Amino acid sequence: MKIGILGAGQLAKMLALAGYPLGIEFAFYAFGPEPKSSVAPIWRHQANANTLQDFMHSVDVITYETENIDSALLAIIAENKPVFPSLEALLTSQDRLQEKALFEKLDIPTTHYIPIDSVAELTQAAQQLSYPFFIKQRSGGYDGKGQQKIDHAEQLQQQDLSGLCKAAIVEAAVPFTQEVSMVATRDQKGTIVYYDLSVNQHQQGILVYAHNLEKHPALTAMARHYMQQVLMALDYVGTLAIEFFVCENQLIANEMSPRVHNSGHWTMQAAVTCQFENHIRAITGLPLGASHSYQQAVMFNLLGKIPEKAQLLSIPNLHLYDYQKTARAKRKMGHVIIADAKISLSGCQAQLAPWLELST
Amino acid sequence: MKIGILGAGQLAKMLALAGYPLGIEFAFYAFGPEPKSSVAPIWRHQANANTLQDFMHSVDVITYETENIDSALLAIIAENKPVFPSLEALLTSQDRLQEKALFEKLDIPTTHYIPIDSVAELTQAAQQLSYPFFIKQRSGGYDGKGQQKIDHAEQLQQQDLSGLCKAAIVEAAVPFTQEVSMVATRDQKGTIVYYDLSVNQHQQGILVYAHNLEKHPALTAMARHYMQQVLMALDYVGTLAIEFFVCENQLIANEMSPRVHNSGHWTMQAAVTCQFENHIRAITGLPLGASHSYQQAVMFNLLGKIPEKAQLLSIPNLHLYDYQKTARAKRKMGHVIIADAKISLSGCQAQLAPWLELST
Repeated sequence: MKIGILGAGQLAKMLALAGYPLGIEFAFYAFGPEPKSSVAPIWRHQANANTLQDFMHSVDVITYETENIDSALLAIIAENKPVFPSLEALLTSQDRLQEKALFEKLDIPTTHYIPIDSVAELTQAAQQLSYPFFIKQRSGGYDGKGQQKIDHAEQLQQQDLSGLCKAAIVEAAVPFTQEVSMVATRDQKGTIVYYDLSVNQHQQGILVYAHNLEKHPALTAMARHYMQQVLMALDYVGTLAIEFFVCENQLIANEMSPRVHNSGHWTMQAAVTCQFENHIRAITGLPLGASHSYQQAVMFNLLGKIPEKAQLLSIPNLHLYDYQKTARAKRKMGHVIIADAKISLSGCQAQLAPWLELST
Repeated sequence: MKIGILGAGQLAKMLALAGYPLGIEFAFYAFGPEPKSSVAPIWRHQANANTLQDFMHSVDVITYETENIDSALLAIIAENKPVFPSLEALLTSQDRLQEKALFEKLDIPTTHYIPIDSVAELTQAAQQLSYPFFIKQRSGGYDGKGQQKIDHAEQLQQQDLSGLCKAAIVEAAVPFTQEVSMVATRDQKGTIVYYDLSVNQHQQGILVYAHNLEKHPALTAMARHYMQQVLMALDYVGTLAIEFFVCENQLIANEMSPRVHNSGHWTMQAAVTCQFENHIRAITGLPLGASHSYQQAVMFNLLGKIPEKAQLLSIPNLHLYDYQKTARAKRKMGHVIIADAKISLSGCQAQLAPWLELST
């Protein structure tokens, strides 16, 4: 069994590392410039018309590590090989309008939004919203890219927003108390396993940490219900993440990602079967593994650079994942997970303080 | 940092899988025919004079996955690159006579033995031992190969043992109640971490299962003391395994392996930092990770063939490691680990019964 992954970044690498022990092989179809990665380059096909054929024919099933894929490309691939998650799942998550429409159809609360396509429509929409609000492009954004917060009316005059306003939405800012996500995997028979609710912290649109330290039974039940609705509506196969705002003890769906997700990385050291292995099991027709947590874990992203490894690895119960990427400000260069039977967020933050300052 | 591994079998593969997340790269120097492995072939150098140079110059540090390596080859390599564990450790473990001499020098009880080099010497030695006893070649054996049990005097007449008797020892059979092993890692500063005592079961010289289910505080203390003696005597860097017979609550050293060891595979799902990652950390100069067990685990070898994966993976808390090797009777094809807070050996055996019968 050989899996083809569209993309050759850290998520592709971690999928492969979870699949190798199961005796599964991998090929990677890389869109960007060559990443410095010790796994991805191996069976790497640089994206072009010739290599796409080679790539497709060399594998049994195809998946992707990013929703920023040309849907026409995926449609061609899907005619030749099984693709999981499906084209429909990809298309839905690629377009904020379709995503919102799905949430609404399934009675999943989501943020108030207005589609816009020009500065004129932005000005009109701004009159229906209170400040601050967000302008978000319908497609292509990640890690806070493709979106902007608008704090006051003057900003609309001062800035040239014409580029951002094409194929976009404006979205009310939600006065949330917490950000959480639900990560789950559905297999080809329809069985679903849910991970513990992840509590997430973002800064400037980039995930800083995520953990399973807090039990929120009511929110978890709600998040699982919404997750189940989406998985079933899309006849989804693989791992899916939905991010929510917590607002007056209710969940408001923010967005979904049809793939393994940064807020699920802590499952590598805390869930019986991590999100990567369950994605692999799902798309290859294998039964899913248990998803419950056997210990507590906090995942911290390493942004901009990898700290000195000898010092980092002297922290007890710390596990390092170095993505081996070229350093760039605020880029996700790796992550660490601190895991044990009982840990505290402040304790982990104190241990990592010298390095977390560096990476912000 | 790039590590060169002499050997490209399952131990090399699992070392690489433990090292990739740390941002370490690997090259493999393969002696045998090409294994079907999804990791090892990648930077694989088939053994010959030209590729040895390429291999050596492409890496920063060299280690090995087997003690069955030409020591002259390793001596040449050690002149060019740092090699861990050292040539001395390899030489000692390659020769049962030297291994016994080390155990004796360090006051570590070992089996009674007599060196032999011919059938005449065998006949003479047999008069000093009671039956049954073993003939074991001094070098090159593994998984019960290169040795034979002699049950009665007639066998010496009936069989042609001339080949086996060259550069061999005869060794008294020990009336042991249990077989155990101590796996530990020592880093370049001399820090040692010890894993929990592994209880092991062999059949016809091949490890069948190994686990951390039993607490034996007195035996553990004894095994750690002997391990420390050997590690310090050899100024050892890396992971080392010593196998013992338990006999009247005493430990009798059987043999040692200067590498990650099959009886330490359960650490992959039960120790904070597994034997593979700690070996990598040690030889690259990184600090060691904690080695204590956070849960119970039993490792079963899959011999001869890999069972049907969908059925195997439906067993709760089971983790599969498929070595992707060509099937052959009694060959180690993979292993499974069943791990949880509390498990029983008989419970695990019951779950695996349909497959364990197949593999024996």
